[in-house]
Amino acid sequence: MDARSPDNVIDPPLRELGFEFEEASAVRVTGRLAVTAKCCQPFKVLHGGVSALIAEALASTGAAIASGYKRVAGIHLSIHHLHPADLGDSILAEAFPVSTGKTIQVWEVRLWKTGKTGEPEKKRMVSTSRVTLFCGLSIPDHVKDAPDNLRKFVSKL
Amino acid sequence: MDARSPDNVIDPPLRELGFEFEEASAVRVTGRLAVTAKCCQPFKVLHGGVSALIAEALASTGAAIASGYKRVAGIHLSIHHLHPADLGDSILAEAFPVSTGKTIQVWEVRLWKTGKTGEPEKKRMVSTSRVTLFCGLSIPDHVKDAPDNLRKFVSKL
Amino acid sequence: MDARSPDNVIDPPLRELGFEFEEASAVRVTGRLAVTAKCCQPFKVLHGGVSALIAEALASTGAAIASGYKRVAGIHLSIHHLHPADLGDSILAEAFPVSTGKTIQVWEVRLWKTGKTGEPEKKRMVSTSRVTLFCGLSIPDHVKDAPDNLRKFVSKL
Amino acid sequence: MDARSPDNVIDPPLRELGFEFEEASAVRVTGRLAVTAKCCQPFKVLHGGVSALIAEALASTGAAIASGYKRVAGIHLSIHHLHPADLGDSILAEAFPVSTGKTIQVWEVRLWKTGKTGEPEKKRMVSTSRVTLFCGLSIPDHVKDAPDNLRKFVSKL
Repeated sequence: MDARSPDNVIDPPLRELGFEFEEASAVRVTGRLAVTAKCCQPFKVLHGGVSALIAEALASTGAAIASGYKRVAGIHLSIHHLHPADLGDSILAEAFPVSTGKTIQVWEVRLWKTGKTGEPEKKRMVSTSRVTLFCGLSIPDHVKDAPDNLRKFVSKL
Repeated sequence: MDARSPDNVIDPPLRELGFEFEEASAVRVTGRLAVTAKCCQPFKVLHGGVSALIAEALASTGAAIASGYKRVAGIHLSIHHLHPADLGDSILAEAFPVSTGKTIQVWEVRLWKTGKTGEPEKKRMVSTSRVTLFCGLSIPDHVKDAPDNLRKFVSKL
Repeated sequence: MDARSPDNVIDPPLRELGFEFEEASAVRVTGRLAVTAKCCQPFKVLHGGVSALIAEALASTGAAIASGYKRVAGIHLSIHHLHPADLGDSILAEAFPVSTGKTIQVWEVRLWKTGKTGEPEKKRMVSTSRVTLFCGLSIPDHVKDAPDNLRKFVSKL
Repeated sequence: MDARSPDNVIDPPLRELGFEFEEASAVRVTGRLAVTAKCCQPFKVLHGGVSALIAEALASTGAAIASGYKRVAGIHLSIHHLHPADLGDSILAEAFPVSTGKTIQVWEVRLWKTGKTGEPEKKRMVSTSRVTLFCGLSIPDHVKDAPDNLRKFVSKL
C-alpha cells in the first residue's frame, strides 16, 4: 500500500494538518502539532476548531483501545478555549479517561503550548475538552479492517 | 496577491478540507462540504472534529460580522453528534445567532446531510452545536487587515 | 398516601422550589415557576442552578415518556444562561426532543420570562439547555412503581 | 436579623436542599450534602439537576472571591453525570479554578460519594462540571450588600 494512501493513516484530517501521534494506550493518548498557517483562523492564532478536532481524534483513539478495539462514536464534545496559541507555536496534546463504562466513556483532552524543551508550560493551557463516546458498536463489513489498522498503528508508536 | 496565498482565505483549515461558504451575514452563515476521505475518521464517516471545525468557523464568521467586523474569540463549543454522514455524502451547514450581546454571543450551527436536490433531509441532522464567543476584542497590528479581508470576502459571496 | 408525601410527586426538588408542570408528552414538556427568594442567588436573580435543575427534570420526564416509560438517566447537560430573571418574575419552561434514538436521546429546554399574559417574551430567553440521556435502563425492584407514578401524573395534567 | 431569613444565607436554593459549605477561597470551595428524598429524582437517586445546582453555586462563590468580591454571572455549565448516588448517601463537593482571567473564569466542580470516614471514594465520582463565568460586573444598588454578606460568610467558615 502506498504510504500516502488516505487509508494508511489513523486519522486523515489530523494528518492533513500535520498532527503527529506520540503515545496511544487505553489510559493515555498524546501527540504534537506545529501551528502552521493552515491550522490558524484569520487572526493567525490556532483555530478553535483544530483544537476540537484534535480532542475528538485523541479521545476516540483512546476509547477505541479501552473498549478492546471495538468501534466507538463520539456523541458530544465540550471544549473550553483558555489561551491562544500563535502561528509558529508548538502544541502538546494529552488525552486521558475521566470515566470508562461499558457503553459510555468520557475522556478529557488538554492542549498546551510548549517551549523549546517540548515540555508543557503549565500556565499556558490552550484548551481543555471533555468528549463523550458511545462504545462497543458493531463494525460494518466495509470498514472491518479499521480496528486492525489501529492496533498496528498503536504497536508501532 | 496569489490566489493560493494562505492570507487569501477566510478560514484556512476549512479550505484545506474543501468547505465552501455560501452566505455570510450577521444573522446567517452557510456553506457546503463534500465528505471526502480527508474529512473522515477511520470508519469512513465524517470526522466529529471536522463537524466541530465547521461549527467554530461559521459561528466566528457570523459573530465577527454581527459585532461590526471586530475581533471575536470562541471561548466554548458544545457539539452533539446525532447521525453519521458517510464518505461521499454532501453536507449543508447553517449557523444563526441564539444571543448577540455586546460582549458575549452564542451561535447555533447545524449540519445536515443533503440529497440530490441540495436540500437538507430534515430527518438527518448530522450535528448541532452551540458556540460561545467573546466579542469586541482589540486587533493586534500584525493582523489588522483581517477584518477588511472578511468584509471583502463577505461582499463577494 | 398522603398528598404531601415526598413519594407522591414526580420531581421532589422541583416541587420544593415551587415549579408546576403543565404539559408532559413524548414531544413536549412544559411548566411554570414563580421566582421566589428560595430560587435566587445572592444578587436576587434566578439561580443558574435552578434553571439547570428545571432543564434536567423536564428533559428526563419527556425522555422517559418517549422511551415508553422506561428508566432514563441524564449523562450530560449543557446550559447557556442568556438573560437574568429577577426575584418576582414568572418563568415558562419548554422542553422538546432534538433527537430520540433507542439508546441516546437529546432534549432542548428553554426558559422564558413571561409577562402578564403568561406568554413568553421572545426577546427574553433566560436560558437554553441541551440534555443528553441514556435510555431503556432496567428498573430496580425498590423503585418499580416509578414508571406507573409518572404515567398517572401525566394522565392527570 | 432572623436566622431563618432568606437574606441570611449565601445560597438559598442550596440551603433549601440541605447543602453545607465547608471551605471557600479563591482557589477552593467545598461542602457536603446528605442525599435526602427532596434531593432525588423519581428513581431515588440524586437528581442530576441538584448536582448542577451545587456546581453553579460553588463555582460562582469561588469566582466571586477570586474576582475580589465583585459580581459574577454564570454564562455556561457543562456537567457529566458519571455514577449515581443513592438516597441516604453522603456527597462531598469540591470546586477549583481551571482558568481565572479578568473577564472570564472557568471552574471545575466534582462531586464524590463519601464513605463513613467522610473521604471521597476515588472510584465513585458522581459528576464533574465545568462552569464558565463572566466577571467584574457592576453591582446594582438593591443588592449592594451581597458582596459584604459573602465576605462575612467566608470569614466564618
